[in-house]
Amino acid sequence: MMKKLVLTGAAGRLGSYLREPLSKLCEELVSTDIVDDIGTLYQGERYEKADLAQMSEIAPVIAGADMVVHFGAIGDERPFEVLLGPNFIGAYNVWEAAYQHGVRRVVYASSIHAVGMHKKQDFIGIDAPHRPDTFYGLAKCFAEDLASMYWDKRGLEAVCLRILSAAQVNNPRALGSWLSYDDLIQLVTRAIDTPTTGFSVIYGVSNNDRAPVDNHLASYLGYRPKDNAEQFAEQVLAEAPPADPTDAAQMYHGGPFASVPLGESGVASMNIINDKKEV
Amino acid sequence: MMKKLVLTGAAGRLGSYLREPLSKLCEELVSTDIVDDIGTLYQGERYEKADLAQMSEIAPVIAGADMVVHFGAIGDERPFEVLLGPNFIGAYNVWEAAYQHGVRRVVYASSIHAVGMHKKQDFIGIDAPHRPDTFYGLAKCFAEDLASMYWDKRGLEAVCLRILSAAQVNNPRALGSWLSYDDLIQLVTRAIDTPTTGFSVIYGVSNNDRAPVDNHLASYLGYRPKDNAEQFAEQVLAEAPPADPTDAAQMYHGGPFASVPLGESGVASMNIINDKKEV
Amino acid sequence: MMKKLVLTGAAGRLGSYLREPLSKLCEELVSTDIVDDIGTLYQGERYEKADLAQMSEIAPVIAGADMVVHFGAIGDERPFEVLLGPNFIGAYNVWEAAYQHGVRRVVYASSIHAVGMHKKQDFIGIDAPHRPDTFYGLAKCFAEDLASMYWDKRGLEAVCLRILSAAQVNNPRALGSWLSYDDLIQLVTRAIDTPTTGFSVIYGVSNNDRAPVDNHLASYLGYRPKDNAEQFAEQVLAEAPPADPTDAAQMYHGGPFASVPLGESGVASMNIINDKKEV
Amino acid sequence: MMKKLVLTGAAGRLGSYLREPLSKLCEELVSTDIVDDIGTLYQGERYEKADLAQMSEIAPVIAGADMVVHFGAIGDERPFEVLLGPNFIGAYNVWEAAYQHGVRRVVYASSIHAVGMHKKQDFIGIDAPHRPDTFYGLAKCFAEDLASMYWDKRGLEAVCLRILSAAQVNNPRALGSWLSYDDLIQLVTRAIDTPTTGFSVIYGVSNNDRAPVDNHLASYLGYRPKDNAEQFAEQVLAEAPPADPTDAAQMYHGGPFASVPLGESGVASMNIINDKKEV
Amino acid sequence: MMKKLVLTGAAGRLGSYLREPLSKLCEELVSTDIVDDIGTLYQGERYEKADLAQMSEIAPVIAGADMVVHFGAIGDERPFEVLLGPNFIGAYNVWEAAYQHGVRRVVYASSIHAVGMHKKQDFIGIDAPHRPDTFYGLAKCFAEDLASMYWDKRGLEAVCLRILSAAQVNNPRALGSWLSYDDLIQLVTRAIDTPTTGFSVIYGVSNNDRAPVDNHLASYLGYRPKDNAEQFAEQVLAEAPPADPTDAAQMYHGGPFASVPLGESGVASMNIINDKKEV
Amino acid sequence: MMKKLVLTGAAGRLGSYLREPLSKLCEELVSTDIVDDIGTLYQGERYEKADLAQMSEIAPVIAGADMVVHFGAIGDERPFEVLLGPNFIGAYNVWEAAYQHGVRRVVYASSIHAVGMHKKQDFIGIDAPHRPDTFYGLAKCFAEDLASMYWDKRGLEAVCLRILSAAQVNNPRALGSWLSYDDLIQLVTRAIDTPTTGFSVIYGVSNNDRAPVDNHLASYLGYRPKDNAEQFAEQVLAEAPPADPTDAAQMYHGGPFASVPLGESGVASMNIINDKKEV
Repeated sequence: MMKKLVLTGAAGRLGSYLREPLSKLCEELVSTDIVDDIGTLYQGERYEKADLAQMSEIAPVIAGADMVVHFGAIGDERPFEVLLGPNFIGAYNVWEAAYQHGVRRVVYASSIHAVGMHKKQDFIGIDAPHRPDTFYGLAKCFAEDLASMYWDKRGLEAVCLRILSAAQVNNPRALGSWLSYDDLIQLVTRAIDTPTTGFSVIYGVSNNDRAPVDNHLASYLGYRPKDNAEQFAEQVLAEAPPADPTDAAQMYHGGPFASVPLGESGVASMNIINDKKEV
Repeated sequence: MMKKLVLTGAAGRLGSYLREPLSKLCEELVSTDIVDDIGTLYQGERYEKADLAQMSEIAPVIAGADMVVHFGAIGDERPFEVLLGPNFIGAYNVWEAAYQHGVRRVVYASSIHAVGMHKKQDFIGIDAPHRPDTFYGLAKCFAEDLASMYWDKRGLEAVCLRILSAAQVNNPRALGSWLSYDDLIQLVTRAIDTPTTGFSVIYGVSNNDRAPVDNHLASYLGYRPKDNAEQFAEQVLAEAPPADPTDAAQMYHGGPFASVPLGESGVASMNIINDKKEV
Repeated sequence: MMKKLVLTGAAGRLGSYLREPLSKLCEELVSTDIVDDIGTLYQGERYEKADLAQMSEIAPVIAGADMVVHFGAIGDERPFEVLLGPNFIGAYNVWEAAYQHGVRRVVYASSIHAVGMHKKQDFIGIDAPHRPDTFYGLAKCFAEDLASMYWDKRGLEAVCLRILSAAQVNNPRALGSWLSYDDLIQLVTRAIDTPTTGFSVIYGVSNNDRAPVDNHLASYLGYRPKDNAEQFAEQVLAEAPPADPTDAAQMYHGGPFASVPLGESGVASMNIINDKKEV
Repeated sequence: MMKKLVLTGAAGRLGSYLREPLSKLCEELVSTDIVDDIGTLYQGERYEKADLAQMSEIAPVIAGADMVVHFGAIGDERPFEVLLGPNFIGAYNVWEAAYQHGVRRVVYASSIHAVGMHKKQDFIGIDAPHRPDTFYGLAKCFAEDLASMYWDKRGLEAVCLRILSAAQVNNPRALGSWLSYDDLIQLVTRAIDTPTTGFSVIYGVSNNDRAPVDNHLASYLGYRPKDNAEQFAEQVLAEAPPADPTDAAQMYHGGPFASVPLGESGVASMNIINDKKEV
Repeated sequence: MMKKLVLTGAAGRLGSYLREPLSKLCEELVSTDIVDDIGTLYQGERYEKADLAQMSEIAPVIAGADMVVHFGAIGDERPFEVLLGPNFIGAYNVWEAAYQHGVRRVVYASSIHAVGMHKKQDFIGIDAPHRPDTFYGLAKCFAEDLASMYWDKRGLEAVCLRILSAAQVNNPRALGSWLSYDDLIQLVTRAIDTPTTGFSVIYGVSNNDRAPVDNHLASYLGYRPKDNAEQFAEQVLAEAPPADPTDAAQMYHGGPFASVPLGESGVASMNIINDKKEV
Repeated sequence: MMKKLVLTGAAGRLGSYLREPLSKLCEELVSTDIVDDIGTLYQGERYEKADLAQMSEIAPVIAGADMVVHFGAIGDERPFEVLLGPNFIGAYNVWEAAYQHGVRRVVYASSIHAVGMHKKQDFIGIDAPHRPDTFYGLAKCFAEDLASMYWDKRGLEAVCLRILSAAQVNNPRALGSWLSYDDLIQLVTRAIDTPTTGFSVIYGVSNNDRAPVDNHLASYLGYRPKDNAEQFAEQVLAEAPPADPTDAAQMYHGGPFASVPLGESGVASMNIINDKKEV
């Protein structure tokens, strides 16, 4: 059992679902984010406020950890200047601090948006070349390449989880891209308990009939999702407006991020309401 | 819900199984074939007799449709001259009429025989190059290429279903190639309800243990077959004569069509009896 | 040395350049086309008028030949109905007659337009899947698939030459796609003198710096083009109008055929003047 | 039903589990090994002692068989000189005798160690090039290449089962590599009852969540494992010592064989106790 | 002929060789760098001092240009914080300013160090996934991904030149990696005069016998290098110390950058002296 | 300059051409074979008689060498029992002795016959899976796999030269497969002077127009053949008997070895006369 595990972005939508299961995998879970308070803590959990973009704030939080689960970042498309601190420099700070302090592995919330401009008909594996759809996706590309380099040059392991859409299934794209919270938890758990991972990439998607990506090359991680968005298909398809055959939001893996102008929020069109876990 | 859906080949073996489920996906199902009568109609179904090889007959049937499910053709190997009208020109007529009348998508009964001369050991994906085994298969290649072009040049969507063998499981090859009627219906339904498809190809085969083809690249269509021919394996294998290791009918994906002389019926050896659905 | 060689399309633009070199590879060259007369004959050459679309006309011409060099067809985009006879049925007639009369090999003038809707950035090899840009290209796909089948099922060899543009270099695309007449002659000669070919496909393009296709997989045919369109680059690029980065005629292998509406001539925009060889 | 089936290595750990199921697939099962006695025989089973390395001993055992299931060999790493007789020459003797006596097919216990030096992150299919980790693995490479040649040149079919680890699940690697005895039996049965196989290769691994190899290209064999080592994951991972991220035994498919010096036993570190089946 | 062309990094080692040839391709060449003065100007050349890391300085320089040739950056490995401004933010500024001002294409000095951790035995094409060897290489990955996105989302063309080593041939690695100045000039010229490029990647390497990378997929750009480092082979090999078979600087494409610690200069070991072109 | 280089098979047809050039690459060339005498020695050359199949004879010859150029073996198809000693055990002895005595690299005369059952139309790269055509080819597969393992496990480098046909060009196959003596010498020189090679495979073939194999993946070795068998094409093709389109000797890479029965000489049909170099 690990002694210390760090979770960044603990106050975020996905982070809030990871706190409880992660707290059971270690003696001490240090949750961190930029808010003052994340509510009631789980057993073994401690909260430390820190700004990822400031090495002087995040490095002490990471010191002494066995692994870091790095989910902290702005979770939507914004202008480059806005994302530069938390999403780009923040990633550098996490890896550099992890290396300086002898952390063994970083588990990273990457995203389908790192490869979002591939067409859905180009069924993509984990070896698909980067093709970001937004500055948000560009930051994921940056962190994945950084992770690759820290493994190759410094032996710091990394598992990059290219999450598709961990949100409600309220549109046809989500019938393929859904990642349920239970499957998210399984995915993060596998990324932690696999004995050696080197630099690994894996898609975060449930066992949906219509899942448009291929995880075969990451089979050794043992991720076998259980949920299937097809249960929502009949209703979602009945309510969906007719699709334009040439609509980028339909044709590309990135969905609405593929059609949104660079720098503008792509979330609105996904109808994601705040369903952050209540403690 | 679609207003008008057209089914060609409605009197054929496979068409007869599609009439009922298709009638439930639209306000009006127009079934068409070259026979005078297809028996009792389902709710919302209308029958129109038309010869596919005559543009003047088939175009009016297609006019106003949202989609066409094109299963009409001679369903066996015949001399080229015999297939030219219904299987080649018929396909052209369907796509051209569909384009002229603003139809959105054609769902097409292609066939394993478009790629039947690949060896079974060369596990083929949906991107396998054409390698027809008969004039029958050559017509499927023609229609697939036509479909590709109408999408690339004119934005008319197409889903080509390369059906393996939608017939009884009474020989060892069918243990791998069987497509049950339920799975056929699921397959056609997915080809219709997927919001955008562009030009897609997918194999029509059940979830057989011994299925010899790969649909991974078409995962976004969400086809997940449920039936498995392995239930028939013990009896079929016990009754099968010893196989010749170099028999083309065993070694090639096309099965009996791979060994039959061009222009001669390949169905006899498959013991397909007429199990057309009774209404 | 072959006894009898048949050249179809002998009165065409490319055919007129092949008559002399082919006449030297055989005891008797039978040139055929639909015109009444092709002018002065070369030594050993005989002319027979025949309509490819009529089996009764073309079969007697082919009878007794060792090989057929099949260049006869309408050489531009036309409506499907116009191409059906000469380009589709004509190809069937040639292969079927060749098979019936024991011909060993068909050397076929296929075209880049069989794969013209691939993007130029998708550097394509001879194994690129069909993606026709016109009915003209669709006929090439049809003949290639037919050729594949006659080899697999009947042992009739075929070499399909996917010619890019055997015309003057008067536009930027031609800097990559040019096939000089000398290289055309080398290509056809290799297709004839290679001892065994099975079913082969090879691109017909000169040794241009900017050649956009890959013949590596056909290296065994020994085609090594000598000419290079780069000699025309400075002038052509200086005179060319600014390119639209999203123009299909620039982005796709098919060039102007990729942007022309189906059924309409694509040649006009290529400024091909009639430079048929004078005898 | 086959008349005569030969099982080599019948006294070995895996062979002892195959005797009973194989005895049911034929009229006569001839079990052979180098021990004097293999205990109580199953119905239809006969035992013949023979040294694989001696053609004069093994050929008479094989004469008259329909198929040979060849599991006989030294089952661990040893110096080349020690393996030369049983593992190399023994394989040659089996195939040559099989050919001389008209046997139809050899089902062979190959091993992951034929490709053991591929990294686990390089998810390998059945077409992965040889990369042996030991002399033991080198012998498997030799026999696979021999099998390929006997099929290509002499029409003798072969199915090479690259078994991962058919042993207890008592270490993290085995969570991916485990092959249960039930699945082994299914695998051998499929290798026998598939009508035609030519030369086939397939991995012998259960349906483990963490299975690190890919059998898709061998789907036509219909092997669908049922067991899953994940049932042992919690306990195994809890008891495992921390992994070194650069340990060859963790990073390579060969596991302990990848890190053991050539010629030295690799089994000790796998804690394989003798769990040979008792009759 | 272009009206205005911008060259960044004009005072750098490679930039100084590009000024003269670029000045001949346009009416006005605007050279820019952070030095006060770049010496005598060529005909049609104008110099403007600007800091790439400051949008307010670089944007006005770019305004009104047809294309930007972007060679400005720190040309060696440095700590991330040092490269952040010129190499990361500078690239963003160039693309964003180019987009805002309607520039058609950016020609970018990328580097082999974007993929430097691939093994030399893994012959890499232009589609090799990113695998940076340094923060310097990571910045190249960032800019390539940025370029891909600006093309996909905004239609701004880019040609990324992955330069190997444009320096003297004084070590064995350079026998493969050398890019002569003449070939560099040809490469940049092709990147400019090719009519449409979309997003393209190409290796910058001469026609060396030992060149370790593959430009086939970029053949349409028409780059055909003329120089060959083999002329230096005899002397270089005679003077080279014996190689360690496992030395990263020998085994990886990145050469000395593959073995240098992150953040430390990798140039020293390459014996690159300042051979900047004198005007 | 190397101190000691060992050449096995020095009395053989190819070995006799290598003695002189190799003697110039080292202070001492130790030539070895099973004959008593190899005639006049070159400067710096010493001859030692040794039987490869006897470790006690070959090990002392190898002791102290920097590299071994291993060309010793029976150079034709023979029964397995005949090849076992010199071709199989001999290879093991060379690698094991090389390892025991700290030799850095083995340069090995492998052969196209290791992959001879691939069809010529399946243009093969150096990564083509083994598919031997004879026991002779099987021994080459064995040695290549052995070489791979000694590199992976023990750091002993190897370059395996898959020679096609280093013999006179007197048949159509040789127009593609010819390796001139000059190109052979260049190939062996590159295999020696490349600083690090790990485990490498490369085809030994001249720059023939009709060369049927692909060396791109080994470009880093810098082998650029100069000779071209096309100079012999006119005469060879004129004299060749008509080819049977289905003749294995024509269709497969192995040529006559692909059609010869296992264990019988394949050389006779190649008309190889003894053109061993005279000293």
